[in-house]
Amino acid sequence: MSERVYNFSPGPAVLPEEVLEQAREDLWNIGGTGIGILEHSHRGKLFNRVIDEAQADCRTLALLPPSYRVLFLHGGASTQFFMLPASYLPDGGTADYLNTGSWSAKAIEEARRYGQVHVASSSEDASYTYIPQGEEISYSSAPAYVHFTSNNTIAGTQHATEPLVPDEVWLACDASSDILSRPIDVEKYGLIYAGAQKNLGPAGVTLVIMREELITRSAVRELPMMLRYRVQADHDSRYNTPNVFGIYVMGRVFKWLLANGGLAEIGRRNAAKAALIYDVLDSSSLFKGTARADSRSLMNVTFRACTEELESLFIAEAEKEGLVGLKGHRSVGGMRASIYNAFPEKGCEALAQLMRDFEVRRG
Amino acid sequence: MSERVYNFSPGPAVLPEEVLEQAREDLWNIGGTGIGILEHSHRGKLFNRVIDEAQADCRTLALLPPSYRVLFLHGGASTQFFMLPASYLPDGGTADYLNTGSWSAKAIEEARRYGQVHVASSSEDASYTYIPQGEEISYSSAPAYVHFTSNNTIAGTQHATEPLVPDEVWLACDASSDILSRPIDVEKYGLIYAGAQKNLGPAGVTLVIMREELITRSAVRELPMMLRYRVQADHDSRYNTPNVFGIYVMGRVFKWLLANGGLAEIGRRNAAKAALIYDVLDSSSLFKGTARADSRSLMNVTFRACTEELESLFIAEAEKEGLVGLKGHRSVGGMRASIYNAFPEKGCEALAQLMRDFEVRRG
Repeated sequence: MSERVYNFSPGPAVLPEEVLEQAREDLWNIGGTGIGILEHSHRGKLFNRVIDEAQADCRTLALLPPSYRVLFLHGGASTQFFMLPASYLPDGGTADYLNTGSWSAKAIEEARRYGQVHVASSSEDASYTYIPQGEEISYSSAPAYVHFTSNNTIAGTQHATEPLVPDEVWLACDASSDILSRPIDVEKYGLIYAGAQKNLGPAGVTLVIMREELITRSAVRELPMMLRYRVQADHDSRYNTPNVFGIYVMGRVFKWLLANGGLAEIGRRNAAKAALIYDVLDSSSLFKGTARADSRSLMNVTFRACTEELESLFIAEAEKEGLVGLKGHRSVGGMRASIYNAFPEKGCEALAQLMRDFEVRRG
Repeated sequence: MSERVYNFSPGPAVLPEEVLEQAREDLWNIGGTGIGILEHSHRGKLFNRVIDEAQADCRTLALLPPSYRVLFLHGGASTQFFMLPASYLPDGGTADYLNTGSWSAKAIEEARRYGQVHVASSSEDASYTYIPQGEEISYSSAPAYVHFTSNNTIAGTQHATEPLVPDEVWLACDASSDILSRPIDVEKYGLIYAGAQKNLGPAGVTLVIMREELITRSAVRELPMMLRYRVQADHDSRYNTPNVFGIYVMGRVFKWLLANGGLAEIGRRNAAKAALIYDVLDSSSLFKGTARADSRSLMNVTFRACTEELESLFIAEAEKEGLVGLKGHRSVGGMRASIYNAFPEKGCEALAQLMRDFEVRRG
């Protein structure tokens, strides 16, 4: 087995090595069937078990009540950006969106094709470096739903908890970059969606957790079959051929999360991992975090050095040490350490140590 | 390495073992990067090379002229069923569809949401057991396009060649089950789409080959970003995170096809493979092919035995011999041998031999 590096990529991102090892076996021949996981029918016994277990394990992890369903869809979060308002934002109606980053802005852009969007809060004026809270949020009188992005990968901010919403209004959430990274109070949500490629698995499959009531409710307009939540639910995420391998890997990641103590324990670990790096930032005179302290993400730690020259030097030194993927998003520059569920604590320790060493040498 | 069986599944389907072996390596660490293919950024150097090579190899295989583009999209053929008419069938306009099976019928159902559909031919009256030809096809006066399904997996029929269409009318084709299985005269087509999971790779990625002119032409209605061919093309299939692994495997399959002589040679092999089974059917008094001889598919050989009891017996015996996935689609019963590109000739020989032996023993 060749050596692997610490992969700080923002997504697709590092997966648990136990999951990769199992996937390598199952690619050739899964469960003694003589057929690899890529080659199994999506309607056969083997895959029935894979998808049933993935659903059941997701329910166990997230403590889903019976009134919620788990779907595995195509098209990424970007497809949910329009499938959600196409289904639930009527012509002439209004949905409220919290604008905390460029992914929120894209969700808003798509929703505007279907109805009114009321931007209930925005931190765009401060380059999205904080999460507006309390009185900074102002809802419309009767929104169809409230949409927010729980974690913002580019600015490195995260909602510490769900925004408070008016009674009887349901939350829709793009949780692509912090899904199942800590315990979640699902009943606050009508619909949660997440591309798999950060915390859950490979790119190309989208987890949707939604209230049964939203599934059975008629969509506000006629949609193609593939865009109907109800069709997807009635066919158990197999109206057409689903991403068999993506669902399989996600299922293995669910089992890995369960074996590692579930969301309470993974949340504790994620907080500890992030603290290792934020602690360095808070005591450094060379490095500085870019997100406001109360809005910091436990998933994406964004930071800068005093000069761009030092940033380039640091990124190059880190790469030599096997710490890769630390370059910040091209729209903001700087550095970003993406440390999702599967990112190992030792990698955070290595980064923190390198930052301290670098400051001694270059500070 | 544990033993693998002959997998006659209709899709997801068998993949070349060389591709699986490479994928097992690359899942852990691809190209000496210290990162597995599932964990690489879709905007990084490694994946740039993967997607560029996949495109170039597809172009080489299909002999694409510069005026055609290659896209890798989400959502399967079922998403193309509506993305195509949403883009090119104007309100009040008419598109012509050839109805040769239940997948054609689904494509027709989606197109009807956007405009008129003229069914130019149909073999539904004969349970889709043949491909209407010549005067059996009657086009409308000025269709926006003509759509057909090149191979029908359930009935086991295949267009021997492209249908003739009126001058200046472009063909749209669902080629999910025979894409790149033989040489193709691309310039007859405006747009070809195919879910990967039969001839090209794992489920969850869709190959689209289309004319540049259709990409730059304005869609007939405003669509969400994800549903715009132009947005997908302008972003080189990476408007959002694509199915990284699916594109990677497809690229490895393209290389395997090139190494095995390209489409002329693979077409010859596929014809020879199918002939092994059809020859038994033509000389059998126990088994009988279900498709009309001039419409037979080289990808899915559908057949029946004299009685359902014998069919069950045959399927059970085959399974014991390591020939699995031979049960026909639930809507038609009987048997079906799906023998796509990666299905080995030896497996077809084994099936033909078993059929002959079975007839001697049970006939």
